Amino acid sequence: MNHPGTGIAPWNNRARRRAQRLARAAEALGPALGGDCGGKRVATASAVALLSAVIESGDRVCLEGNNQKQADFLAKALVQLDPAQVNDLHMVQSVISLPEHLDVFENGIASRLDFSFSGPQGGRLAKLLSQGRLSIGAIHTYLELFGRYFVDLTPQVALVAAHSVDAEGNLYTGANTEDTPVIAEATAFSGGILVAQVNEVVDKVPRVDIPAGWVDFVVQAPRPNLIEPLFTRDPAQISEIQVLMAMMAIKGIYAEYGVQRLNHGIGFDTAAIELLLPTYAESLGLKGKICRHWALNPHPALIPAIEAGWVQSIHSFGSELGMEDYIRARSDVFFTGADGSLRSNRAFCQAAGHYACDLFIGSTLQMDLAGNSSTATAGRITGFGGAPNMGADARGRRHSSPAWLKAGREARDGLGGARGTPRGQKLVVQMVETFREHMQPAFVETLDAWELARQAKMDLPPVMIYGEDVTHVLTEEGIANLLLCRTDEEREQAIRGVAGYTPVGLARDRRMVENLRDRGVIRRPADLGVDVRLATRNLLAARSMRELSLASGGLYRPPARFRNW
Amino acid sequence: MNHPGTGIAPWNNRARRRAQRLARAAEALGPALGGDCGGKRVATASAVALLSAVIESGDRVCLEGNNQKQADFLAKALVQLDPAQVNDLHMVQSVISLPEHLDVFENGIASRLDFSFSGPQGGRLAKLLSQGRLSIGAIHTYLELFGRYFVDLTPQVALVAAHSVDAEGNLYTGANTEDTPVIAEATAFSGGILVAQVNEVVDKVPRVDIPAGWVDFVVQAPRPNLIEPLFTRDPAQISEIQVLMAMMAIKGIYAEYGVQRLNHGIGFDTAAIELLLPTYAESLGLKGKICRHWALNPHPALIPAIEAGWVQSIHSFGSELGMEDYIRARSDVFFTGADGSLRSNRAFCQAAGHYACDLFIGSTLQMDLAGNSSTATAGRITGFGGAPNMGADARGRRHSSPAWLKAGREARDGLGGARGTPRGQKLVVQMVETFREHMQPAFVETLDAWELARQAKMDLPPVMIYGEDVTHVLTEEGIANLLLCRTDEEREQAIRGVAGYTPVGLARDRRMVENLRDRGVIRRPADLGVDVRLATRNLLAARSMRELSLASGGLYRPPARFRNW
Repeated sequence: MNHPGTGIAPWNNRARRRAQRLARAAEALGPALGGDCGGKRVATASAVALLSAVIESGDRVCLEGNNQKQADFLAKALVQLDPAQVNDLHMVQSVISLPEHLDVFENGIASRLDFSFSGPQGGRLAKLLSQGRLSIGAIHTYLELFGRYFVDLTPQVALVAAHSVDAEGNLYTGANTEDTPVIAEATAFSGGILVAQVNEVVDKVPRVDIPAGWVDFVVQAPRPNLIEPLFTRDPAQISEIQVLMAMMAIKGIYAEYGVQRLNHGIGFDTAAIELLLPTYAESLGLKGKICRHWALNPHPALIPAIEAGWVQSIHSFGSELGMEDYIRARSDVFFTGADGSLRSNRAFCQAAGHYACDLFIGSTLQMDLAGNSSTATAGRITGFGGAPNMGADARGRRHSSPAWLKAGREARDGLGGARGTPRGQKLVVQMVETFREHMQPAFVETLDAWELARQAKMDLPPVMIYGEDVTHVLTEEGIANLLLCRTDEEREQAIRGVAGYTPVGLARDRRMVENLRDRGVIRRPADLGVDVRLATRNLLAARSMRELSLASGGLYRPPARFRNW
Repeated sequence: MNHPGTGIAPWNNRARRRAQRLARAAEALGPALGGDCGGKRVATASAVALLSAVIESGDRVCLEGNNQKQADFLAKALVQLDPAQVNDLHMVQSVISLPEHLDVFENGIASRLDFSFSGPQGGRLAKLLSQGRLSIGAIHTYLELFGRYFVDLTPQVALVAAHSVDAEGNLYTGANTEDTPVIAEATAFSGGILVAQVNEVVDKVPRVDIPAGWVDFVVQAPRPNLIEPLFTRDPAQISEIQVLMAMMAIKGIYAEYGVQRLNHGIGFDTAAIELLLPTYAESLGLKGKICRHWALNPHPALIPAIEAGWVQSIHSFGSELGMEDYIRARSDVFFTGADGSLRSNRAFCQAAGHYACDLFIGSTLQMDLAGNSSTATAGRITGFGGAPNMGADARGRRHSSPAWLKAGREARDGLGGARGTPRGQKLVVQMVETFREHMQPAFVETLDAWELARQAKMDLPPVMIYGEDVTHVLTEEGIANLLLCRTDEEREQAIRGVAGYTPVGLARDRRMVENLRDRGVIRRPADLGVDVRLATRNLLAARSMRELSLASGGLYRPPARFRNW
């Protein structure tokens, strides 16, 4: 729409379109748009009518959902729109995890997708893509997607989830604050429409997470929003190999660099590390010297370390089911509100993980000989959530710490020019058993990501962590310190040298690998003084869910599916 | 304090200490702790008594202030504390810019400092440091410091600035929201005490920026908080050399890479680019092809481009004085609230600058032959604010764009191994005249930062942008594309080749420089098809403050000091 004859757009388009949407909603809803919650409340049965009124074809729509909290009721409502009336939506959202997240594409309501992660729906997503039912803009790391919400992917409509709403329309997200603040801010301050589903309508919320003035419509969902306990790992399933690898991580990396501030990826490998802090790490005299500050969800596996006084602070992306009472009682460690419950915040925790941590450690499915790793496999489009952000050297960082300086020195020693200019480096550790499920080798000549990129016509193969950013590869065979490698060949042999009996490992140059071991680039358990005979499950501070709960003084109440005692 | 005999800390220390602080405040203030603003209001005259009551020796105290908004009244109150009672404070704050920010160290109230930027106070800071009056933890980029607020630099007390407070205690920050949300969140959810100074007490705020529940105390300041119009550049002061450099930036970089999303540093160099968009760039047919989305404060110099329909969105770190009415009338472009005023947010805008922009362009004072640049000079400790964050390759980024892919291809073409793995790269341009004020050469063999690091016993020299991250160096002599350099020597000669008549430039290897020019590594105005004769001030879309105001239809009202007509 142009000013007649000028070719220049008139102004106040956003305000006008917003007013039109609100007017359509008022007309469509009539008495279903209640007087309570500051006049923002919409009857549950009218959710579809609401979305039909406020969403226009071609809109960018942000549907909240991460790997924990899901705006599942609004997702179900969205699917019921009439594609003849609303179509060509551009979905911008953290996670593709509910069937409805893809139904909108199958139904012809949406056509374009920008996202970060799609674990369980990765196969179906790849299929829909190959059928031409949607186009993918890009797969992001969370903070990157949030950043684009303020630049070129600003939502016209956002559908979020909160725990409760009060009489004025203020939202309480409770422990799973997660992505809500950043989505709400990007939408509410750009003339967008913010719709929230809530579990409860109350007179006064325990605390205000999102002010009423930022919210346009509130709908009570017929059942509480879905929350997945995704970060719970049953210690009973930790293997002795994982105990051994955790010992190596503690002695060979955490102690070596004096890592105080860190993030752990999700999985049994890192759960084992958490459970060895009050036992093995304590026996090495490391208490107070490592692992004091965390950017981490409330992992139940960290309870014994917290109880033993190892942990000074934990800031979280989201919460974890069953941890509510424990968090409330340990507000010295967790970030909690006046109501005693967690205030998580994925955007700020990702910023902290990127810039305020010295180490990221996580697992992968595949690694190539350059050290590039990926969990992407052919036929599935997954994305990597927060890993690319936390598993990348934060090159804007300027504050130093002993860990960061030592890593930087190791990487740059002997180099000249720009690459030799002194600067620190983040420790990025990939922890992986040489064989994964079904005896698939974790080390490969070529990542499946390349084939996937061809299939899905991606600009680049979906690499989770680039070899350039990985500092250490840790397997049951030992640790390869890539910081000390000076040539592509050294790096390749360092990786082969810890790749065990995989074809890649067997093809090692034995002499070069021994030379790398002499130089400390490769370190075996014996080189680290790690006694393999100690690597038993007895070393775990808790060996079962029951022991975790006991360690918490009964404050941690695992969800039913984990209550195996 | 330990549980007797156990060696284990008891829990609820934070809650207990918080309750003690609140009780001391209630006792000290008595009737000065008013019943209004949700019972949070403290009489102006009691500000010092309040801070004495809530701050304890050794506390980490965050004093809000960035390069625009300042919690100046609370800064003045802090200085008046009795160092015999309160001392050894650890100040954590974005900017050292008011005299009071250093008075607290001179007075013996504070002893440790973590910060990001200290423009005008850099000399005095260096002096105090050399006198042993304070120790500096580190100098950060903003987002990094914010990240640490959630990890190891969480404030026990935060002193922030807002525009107004309502009867319940909700805060309205208005256009200069800036750092307040991130400081408030880190403090309010960790058992800290949040004190806000406000300009006005009102019945109802125009919008809620910080919910009342996050706020502990509110004090009305005797005068409005200080705000500096730091991003206003008078077009009258733009030189013809700057016009020429801006032409090269547009034709040789923006058009070449198709840069759509970007951040501009502060200064006349980039103001010139902004003022050439509707003239020179328009004549090249670039409208709609470059510069559509910005992470940028509301630069007045961008008004002509906005009016000509060049700009689709601008998200801002802070606001700019005089731009209020213009922003309100251009809410299609700026992020504004329901009240019509800007909602800036430094944390989110820095995240956007890091992850959602393809290009950062800024100026520097010095660059060495590896491409490392710094504005640090001997005898002054300044820090770099947001530049390290935006002027670094965002290695966690996974979404692609033509600009980012092309830069990545250029950097990696022909390389193998980890460095050769395809990935994109951010464009980071340093724009600098070969000689700066007082005929000081901008290109040097060794940065002053090295000497400063020795003086101040820093772990690393304070480099603003590392050579590894710089992609282009732009001077009046031409553009050096460092992405295409494959050796340290090529990089050095590429830099010498645009370093003009500086000693560094004169010492170039002429043959090698000509070779680099043949390869397109160095490009002169003629190589770019930039007609030097056109580089006059006539090319600027506005040549004075008056013309800027006219271009805005009178909506932009420059502060008095810029009203020179």
